[in-house]
Amino acid sequence: MKRSFIREILEHTNSQTISFAGGLPMASLFPHEALRNSANQVLKEPSVLQYGNSMGLKALREKIANFYNQEGFETKAENILITSGSQQALDIICRYHANRSITIEVPSYLGAMNIFKLNNLKQEAITLERDSIELESFEKSFKETQLAYLIPDFQNPTGLSYSAEKREAITKIAEQGGLIIEDAPYSKLYFQEDQKSISSMMPKQSYHLGTFSKTLAPALRIGWIRADKTLLEPLIAYKEAMDLHSNGVTQAILNEYLSDNRAYENHIELLRGAYGQKMQFFAQSLRKILPLFEFVEPKGGMFIYGRIPHTNTSKLLKQALKNGVVFVPGAEFYSDNHGENEIRFNFSLASEEEVVLGLSKISNLLNLKSLL
Amino acid sequence: MKRSFIREILEHTNSQTISFAGGLPMASLFPHEALRNSANQVLKEPSVLQYGNSMGLKALREKIANFYNQEGFETKAENILITSGSQQALDIICRYHANRSITIEVPSYLGAMNIFKLNNLKQEAITLERDSIELESFEKSFKETQLAYLIPDFQNPTGLSYSAEKREAITKIAEQGGLIIEDAPYSKLYFQEDQKSISSMMPKQSYHLGTFSKTLAPALRIGWIRADKTLLEPLIAYKEAMDLHSNGVTQAILNEYLSDNRAYENHIELLRGAYGQKMQFFAQSLRKILPLFEFVEPKGGMFIYGRIPHTNTSKLLKQALKNGVVFVPGAEFYSDNHGENEIRFNFSLASEEEVVLGLSKISNLLNLKSLL
Repeated sequence: MKRSFIREILEHTNSQTISFAGGLPMASLFPHEALRNSANQVLKEPSVLQYGNSMGLKALREKIANFYNQEGFETKAENILITSGSQQALDIICRYHANRSITIEVPSYLGAMNIFKLNNLKQEAITLERDSIELESFEKSFKETQLAYLIPDFQNPTGLSYSAEKREAITKIAEQGGLIIEDAPYSKLYFQEDQKSISSMMPKQSYHLGTFSKTLAPALRIGWIRADKTLLEPLIAYKEAMDLHSNGVTQAILNEYLSDNRAYENHIELLRGAYGQKMQFFAQSLRKILPLFEFVEPKGGMFIYGRIPHTNTSKLLKQALKNGVVFVPGAEFYSDNHGENEIRFNFSLASEEEVVLGLSKISNLLNLKSLL
Repeated sequence: MKRSFIREILEHTNSQTISFAGGLPMASLFPHEALRNSANQVLKEPSVLQYGNSMGLKALREKIANFYNQEGFETKAENILITSGSQQALDIICRYHANRSITIEVPSYLGAMNIFKLNNLKQEAITLERDSIELESFEKSFKETQLAYLIPDFQNPTGLSYSAEKREAITKIAEQGGLIIEDAPYSKLYFQEDQKSISSMMPKQSYHLGTFSKTLAPALRIGWIRADKTLLEPLIAYKEAMDLHSNGVTQAILNEYLSDNRAYENHIELLRGAYGQKMQFFAQSLRKILPLFEFVEPKGGMFIYGRIPHTNTSKLLKQALKNGVVFVPGAEFYSDNHGENEIRFNFSLASEEEVVLGLSKISNLLNLKSLL
């Protein structure tokens, strides 16, 4: 097993490094006072510190189920398995389906590809186009694999989203037989409109992965799998063997925080506004400072993806790292030799000053290169 | 995969059920006020809610390393990998060593045997005797497997401990080549004396697993692996793929709690006294109420293990469950058909009234059975 490029890069940076690399939320937006109050409340009871249920805290599972119900996607607590982040959610599912083949988007989420390798899942990579995975190839591949991993909302790394028509088309294909793993960490961080999940159109053949890492705070390490009971049931033994149950303290804190109906909704609303602005600023700065960088503005999420023609971005990163700025070169998101000119920029973390300074450093490196 | 017997049993009980089943600490002893103060302190900083390092919070790893140093077992932060409980610690190691054979004690920890199955490790079971795994068979098996899983302190389920001489003998055998996984969740819960770990005698060939679940609170879900850097390094990629990193909030709470040098030490001292008394009371009650139960008093930990001759304890459990009392029948701890007459009682959770009432219910069931 190779280590995660992003996690390793992040450990080699210091507090002075400007990071456009990880999918990190902006720390100053964390609702830490509200979560602190919740912690203060729940830790009055010693029982919160005891072992918990393998599937997770029932009251929290009910609240998560309710998010789905509010969107018209009928869900009960029994359809929710709480996991140690959605990273573990995907690992549990892939461990259950180990040694199969899986249809994935290319480029795709690095952490997912590591999980596929770990579970000996053979990846069948289908090109991601502007509004969907390429349908004809998808259909052909899915007929064989009967298992797919998709990130339809503000995809990692590309920031692209599936259109409503393509979601329906995929559902029609997948309904013929097989399972979809729909990873949706960014889905509520839309700048314009919410999209219907593919899972809601095929609830009996889908795992829908959610998390509080992007909408509240990653350190809580709470994610979940939403699935039909018959799909979820066999996963419980895996979850138990892997870490008994998810963190009881942060589950209780979350459950308390969510008992105020409006707090979470207001917070996500705040994030949408703030990240929308940050994306705009980053995009404008790119056009001004790095005009060679070709990209499409994302409609949500945390990433701007694009390319600098004739530039090996992996080599560029090595220089950038020395100059105190980091990003993820596109090659990391492919399992073959593609993506050499591509870059993923995270726009949610850095301040405006850091964006200008970081992009200027990259621009200088590009100018230097062209002079040599 | 089968679900964990104990976790499933626990979910089928209600708040009225008297449980001698799980290895649950006594909730009223949790230092919830101190942990609440720590939470209150650390959540003042929004940065505590951000993504963390794959190996865990450096300051916490330093404090854990220091526990070892205080015992003369030289350890640095780089030797500690923080995990989501020691359950995950064992899974990470076994995933790395998947598809091998492993020498284990019989009977052994149920949750470990589930991990071995999950990682396709072939279990070579060696009888656990009163003061050690049976040495001759161990030597023969370990020569082949070069990998062993041992619980030398107040073993789960038997409560037995390895003597100092046997620890040395095992070290001599293992040093010839191979790795020991030493699981030590109960080691600090001794009633008489602390024992030297096997790992400390062979630091380059051992994984030592620790946890705060038994000495502080399980819901924190924080455990660790202590190992030589060369052994630990390849595990980081696994940890990352599995859940990115352990819970940042409870790591920070723990780190704050442990910054008061005496608090944790005093708390464990309190537990030793309280659990020692609880064990004494349970043992006396067994002798009075269930005189047929044959057992040896443990010198620490959370379990009393023994047998009721001519009694199928799995059948007894089914009756007991209907009567509102649960324990774990011995058969669960074996992978073959052994342990039919054996029982594991947990003594750390139930109150004195519950112990008397629960054992009386079991005694009545035994009397009924002998009358039929």
